[in-house]
Amino acid sequence: MRAVAGSVLVVGTGLIGTSVGLALQDTHRVLLHDRDQGRLAEAVGRGAGLAWDGSETVDLALVAIPPARTAAEIVDLQRRGVAATFTHVASCQSQVQRDLEAQQADLTRICGGHPLAGRETSGPGGATAQLFLARPWVVCALPTTAADASAAVTALAVACRAEPLTMAPDEHDRAVALSSHLPQMASSALAAALLSSDARSVSVSGPGLQDTTRIAASDPDLWTEVLAANAAHVAPLVGGLAQELHQLHGALERLARGPDAEALRQVRDVLTRGNEGRSLVPVKRGVRDRDVTVVAVRVTDEPGQLAHLLVRAAAADVNVEDVHVEHLPGRHTGVVELLVRQADAGRLAHALSLDGLEVIEGSP
Amino acid sequence: MRAVAGSVLVVGTGLIGTSVGLALQDTHRVLLHDRDQGRLAEAVGRGAGLAWDGSETVDLALVAIPPARTAAEIVDLQRRGVAATFTHVASCQSQVQRDLEAQQADLTRICGGHPLAGRETSGPGGATAQLFLARPWVVCALPTTAADASAAVTALAVACRAEPLTMAPDEHDRAVALSSHLPQMASSALAAALLSSDARSVSVSGPGLQDTTRIAASDPDLWTEVLAANAAHVAPLVGGLAQELHQLHGALERLARGPDAEALRQVRDVLTRGNEGRSLVPVKRGVRDRDVTVVAVRVTDEPGQLAHLLVRAAAADVNVEDVHVEHLPGRHTGVVELLVRQADAGRLAHALSLDGLEVIEGSP
Repeated sequence: MRAVAGSVLVVGTGLIGTSVGLALQDTHRVLLHDRDQGRLAEAVGRGAGLAWDGSETVDLALVAIPPARTAAEIVDLQRRGVAATFTHVASCQSQVQRDLEAQQADLTRICGGHPLAGRETSGPGGATAQLFLARPWVVCALPTTAADASAAVTALAVACRAEPLTMAPDEHDRAVALSSHLPQMASSALAAALLSSDARSVSVSGPGLQDTTRIAASDPDLWTEVLAANAAHVAPLVGGLAQELHQLHGALERLARGPDAEALRQVRDVLTRGNEGRSLVPVKRGVRDRDVTVVAVRVTDEPGQLAHLLVRAAAADVNVEDVHVEHLPGRHTGVVELLVRQADAGRLAHALSLDGLEVIEGSP
Repeated sequence: MRAVAGSVLVVGTGLIGTSVGLALQDTHRVLLHDRDQGRLAEAVGRGAGLAWDGSETVDLALVAIPPARTAAEIVDLQRRGVAATFTHVASCQSQVQRDLEAQQADLTRICGGHPLAGRETSGPGGATAQLFLARPWVVCALPTTAADASAAVTALAVACRAEPLTMAPDEHDRAVALSSHLPQMASSALAAALLSSDARSVSVSGPGLQDTTRIAASDPDLWTEVLAANAAHVAPLVGGLAQELHQLHGALERLARGPDAEALRQVRDVLTRGNEGRSLVPVKRGVRDRDVTVVAVRVTDEPGQLAHLLVRAAAADVNVEDVHVEHLPGRHTGVVELLVRQADAGRLAHALSLDGLEVIEGSP
């Protein structure tokens, strides 16, 4: 016998919906619904819940379908009296809120949410009970939302082992516009600029180009929908970045013509503010760039070298926060950068040196 | 007795100069000079060469000092007849070339070069004989350069175990403007935009923000000099990026007002071109993003977990091209993404699954 905290209907058995079903198996009765019968069968087959019969009522309905259809689905379910409380998982909250208002939903019983846990994969095949583990799950309560409705959504987030974080829909949308949507636009536009070049230019590059263009590989269709839905918040940020680069362009044009102290100051100012902005980016909750440092080691590029390095770090009781592998083009060698806490760097560098490894940064 | 291929004078015993001295110890007689006596003593102490007496002549002089002083130093050494051939290591070549012409140097005996091997560290303390191993070393010969002068610089690059790559100064400067200087500007401007936000906005972020802002931590003084020297090539690229973002801004503003098919098309177009541009970025010589794939595994965030994972990969004879560690905020868990060749992904996922690890992407 398992303790059942309540019943949940998941509508839309994609990656998020199916993962919610899997995460709730030990604590909730989970019913699943999807207009795609194959996708529903896969989610049921994976043990995410039972197929909904279309009539059983539940405590909470979670609608996990594309944002454009979310409000209509909630309104339909609410009119049929399917659940006491409704939530959804839209990555842009205000648009769904406006749709719900336009369709005269009972807003007291609807509380939006957004688990920040998506991956590049989609569909029930990639789902896992662990998807939300320690991830932020933004709960978007409005003043009109009944207290027990927002509490039910918070409890759902906790049951999925996420970290609930309360924000107004507009505050949420503003936050992701800056922390997710603006970087996507910058990376895509930067990568697009490479198309005008010849292959030789791109070959003379290092890890900086790698990192700045990684998310430019994201799905264009998905991101077009996300950006359109959050256009009101993303537009001024993209405009501001365009303006900053436009002014840099002016300063660089003046420097191309000859010495110009004011233009130099402008360029240095952007670089300096970039330093400050970068220091705000969380590496890990409570650990920012200022607290961590790099120990760099030269390795040969063969199976097992990286493993060997990390085994030595573990033996020295050093937790490696992140790893960056820099390949040296053309030969089977590379540099591995281990990001560790400042206090651990000396001990790690010493341990690796004793082991005959060449530490090229963070020497003991 | 060692075989001595020739004599080299290194002027400027910073990271690059001292590393050249160390790399040439087995094959060349290396003399060192630096106007900073402490820095010179440190380079000599590290075994990078002997202190130059100011009169001994050499086959090749390598000037590794800031670009603004490079031409004057070469002209002075050339007038004193110190070396048969001269080279330098400026990260922007045309400016030095123009300075040399203005100072009426004998250009037949001067051939610029640029090893793409700098690090965040500077000074002789960070120097290593391995710094140039398999790195591109651009050799910038002009039509006026004597064949044996450019051959001597190419031979120097090879002796340092770099990969020589011949480019005209202007071609070199155009290449690094795109592959290095433009990403720096984009990353700095993006990170600077974070300063206008509150801490809560930045806390709702993922690895995308991490990657796109990493190089925004670069040294503002160094980069101001680099960007000013290459302003003629960087300016139009920064202008183009500003223009692209300006148009995106317009499209997003129209989308904020209501449905707009043409604006949607514009946004999707940038994202699609971003996909194409990203696919040009070398992961490793001969290995581009299209050939590699991700196997993602959930791990606990304790010393040894990452090592364990890589030991299993090595046991499965899978070479891990790169590692990305995604921390889950607040709890001691994370996701490790292993970048491997397409052909190895299934075997690796299978091996890790057998070992009880939760493979959440690239499932067998």
